[in-house]
Amino acid sequence: MGMTIAEKTLARAAGKKEVRPGEIVWVNVDIAMMHDLLGPRLIDKGFRKLGGKLFDREKVVVVSDHCTPPATVYQADILKYTRDWAKEFELPYYYEFEGPCHQVIVEHGHVRPGRLILGTDSHTCMAGGLGAFATGIGSTEMIGVLLTGETWLKVPETIKVNWEGTIPSGIYSKDIILKTIGDIGHAGATYQVLEFAGSAIRGMSLDERLVLSNMAVEAGAKTGIIEPDDVIEGFLKTKGIENTERINSDHDARYLREFAYNASELEPQVACPHEIDNVHPVSAVEGTYVDQVYLGSCTNGRISDLRVAAEILKGRKISKNIRCLVVPASQAIWMQANKEGILDVLTEAGCIVNMPSCGACGGFTSGVIGAGEVVMSSSNRNFKGRMGSPLGEIYIGSPATVAATAIEGKIADPRKYIQ
Amino acid sequence: MGMTIAEKTLARAAGKKEVRPGEIVWVNVDIAMMHDLLGPRLIDKGFRKLGGKLFDREKVVVVSDHCTPPATVYQADILKYTRDWAKEFELPYYYEFEGPCHQVIVEHGHVRPGRLILGTDSHTCMAGGLGAFATGIGSTEMIGVLLTGETWLKVPETIKVNWEGTIPSGIYSKDIILKTIGDIGHAGATYQVLEFAGSAIRGMSLDERLVLSNMAVEAGAKTGIIEPDDVIEGFLKTKGIENTERINSDHDARYLREFAYNASELEPQVACPHEIDNVHPVSAVEGTYVDQVYLGSCTNGRISDLRVAAEILKGRKISKNIRCLVVPASQAIWMQANKEGILDVLTEAGCIVNMPSCGACGGFTSGVIGAGEVVMSSSNRNFKGRMGSPLGEIYIGSPATVAATAIEGKIADPRKYIQ
Repeated sequence: MGMTIAEKTLARAAGKKEVRPGEIVWVNVDIAMMHDLLGPRLIDKGFRKLGGKLFDREKVVVVSDHCTPPATVYQADILKYTRDWAKEFELPYYYEFEGPCHQVIVEHGHVRPGRLILGTDSHTCMAGGLGAFATGIGSTEMIGVLLTGETWLKVPETIKVNWEGTIPSGIYSKDIILKTIGDIGHAGATYQVLEFAGSAIRGMSLDERLVLSNMAVEAGAKTGIIEPDDVIEGFLKTKGIENTERINSDHDARYLREFAYNASELEPQVACPHEIDNVHPVSAVEGTYVDQVYLGSCTNGRISDLRVAAEILKGRKISKNIRCLVVPASQAIWMQANKEGILDVLTEAGCIVNMPSCGACGGFTSGVIGAGEVVMSSSNRNFKGRMGSPLGEIYIGSPATVAATAIEGKIADPRKYIQ
Repeated sequence: MGMTIAEKTLARAAGKKEVRPGEIVWVNVDIAMMHDLLGPRLIDKGFRKLGGKLFDREKVVVVSDHCTPPATVYQADILKYTRDWAKEFELPYYYEFEGPCHQVIVEHGHVRPGRLILGTDSHTCMAGGLGAFATGIGSTEMIGVLLTGETWLKVPETIKVNWEGTIPSGIYSKDIILKTIGDIGHAGATYQVLEFAGSAIRGMSLDERLVLSNMAVEAGAKTGIIEPDDVIEGFLKTKGIENTERINSDHDARYLREFAYNASELEPQVACPHEIDNVHPVSAVEGTYVDQVYLGSCTNGRISDLRVAAEILKGRKISKNIRCLVVPASQAIWMQANKEGILDVLTEAGCIVNMPSCGACGGFTSGVIGAGEVVMSSSNRNFKGRMGSPLGEIYIGSPATVAATAIEGKIADPRKYIQ
């Protein structure tokens, strides 16, 4: 019997020919990633107690993204601690003020097909969009990884999510993943892998694929994975990475479940408060007033997202009753967007452009919401208190839905603004 | 005996022909300004208890600038409270997410020569750069102003600060005010007016003048004032304001003290930790390592400041050991700078551009410093804890000194980077 991409990747990481779901395997880690909030400051004591030697500093990546810019002395101290730690251990790959770690490690070429990537953040799964097996681990577990380069994992079952057909205008990968999570449920894929396949997925840009893999964990999945192809190979070449591994699921690989969808029938989707699987077509919530619109995050703050929003907002003004915060997913994207004139278009429309950071999405800084405030966001989570007050409400949709909502000041169908 | 600009303005506000220093006068307020942090949330209870009717809503301006973007639920709740209050009282002039109030009220034409402007912020004195008598008051005092449009003031003595001569290349109004405050002392002008005069001042743009008036309070002054002239009249015309009042100090006006300087002899000045009057020529502190550079604030985040920094940073890279935060003084300036390509230049050099806010300068959000961190800032205050940790250190200099320091990662003389 064949293996899935996830199984093949874990087999390679375990130095075995074959692994099967349910099996416990010891694996070698290709990239160990930490960020400021759940990184050095939490692992340092245990790490030093056990010897304090990194297994391979070339495989350790630290990204300060949650406390940038610091909103409190507490955050500033964490940032400094992280920076000093990276310096002390002479890490070649320490990044700060570049944006959320998941985007930054893709941009810097750390994410490659077939790699096993473990990070101290739940959205580490985003790297699966390039065909890696990537998942979040706790900071305590990270101590062992940093010391030995190894850990154990139970090989997960894989769920196949097939999207065939042509994606209609005004519909994006965000709508596809929201629809999928709405069906699977927010815990429906716990400790399983979501493998996205089908012609609609194959036709997607890297930007769009990363939305799917980013949100796999929102269905409880260990990772979200997409077969790497020319799109991924082409992207990695722009980073100077040649001979990209091709890894695919065998035709006789075993799936725990399969979901089949036709993309051409899809409407814009919105996840409503307070669960990410409380998903409805936009028509069901159209007209709901919002106070804030948030366009950004590692989920949907990439250049293609900003282009879509700019296309909708060009020559228009956002509603006077709301504020619209734009947070590109990285500093590189901020700069690219500015070169393309996108930031001019967005600010002319009345948006505020902030620096890349996890701040507003995670409710730490730079856009926290208060009691009674309603947000339409392009991010990935809407549980109570995610963006600040537990008395706030968060709706999640595509950047297009977010942009259309910004114009009307209430949830709107983006298709009427798209030529 | 003649009167100074400050005395004439207070006489007019008091409905009197003449006032003298030391006299207590009842005055009519032209503009009552509040911001989010020290505004509605603090005055509301007392204001309602005493009737809750605004004396004239056309003369009340509220600017949310300290809690934008909110970094905590507490700040988000303050922002919402302020917005809701402005709505309830149908204020025609409520601004948020536009930047620090002192800049915003200038841009919106609320500041005019001869006006009496009272605000719940110590840097309200910045409006004196256009020839207004502008000063900070407490929130409790503001309750009375909001209800009656009146308050009492003791007419202050005036100190004349004369700067003659040509300002050399690489020297700016920030160096002039730092030198002045170093001589007067941080409490040397308490409850007095600083009147800036002389050919070096007359030759300044509005942007530069506002640096002087902004920092008058750093010497303890009630306000900093500059005789309005064609520069001010020209600026106000761009806002559609004609027939600008000309107000000047009589030739026989009485001054408590006079300071006389020759600008042509000035070096770049730096205020060193932890007092704003601990001022030294840049040569005395050159080479001091810094962790962060902050270019922005209502003091020195205007378009001419950003132009100077961009001129120095164009084609160069900031030091890898530091981070450089750029915070334009308003959203209008952000947009103007972007149109001029300045934000591209600054980000290419490695700077991070943030949205306009009081955050980093006041240590509330978006760039707070931690223990042991050293900052070179273009802002206005460097007392312990101003930008975050009381164990941090803040140096204050011109935008040019800040930009040169960003390049070297240590305090640098900007003149070597200027053609």
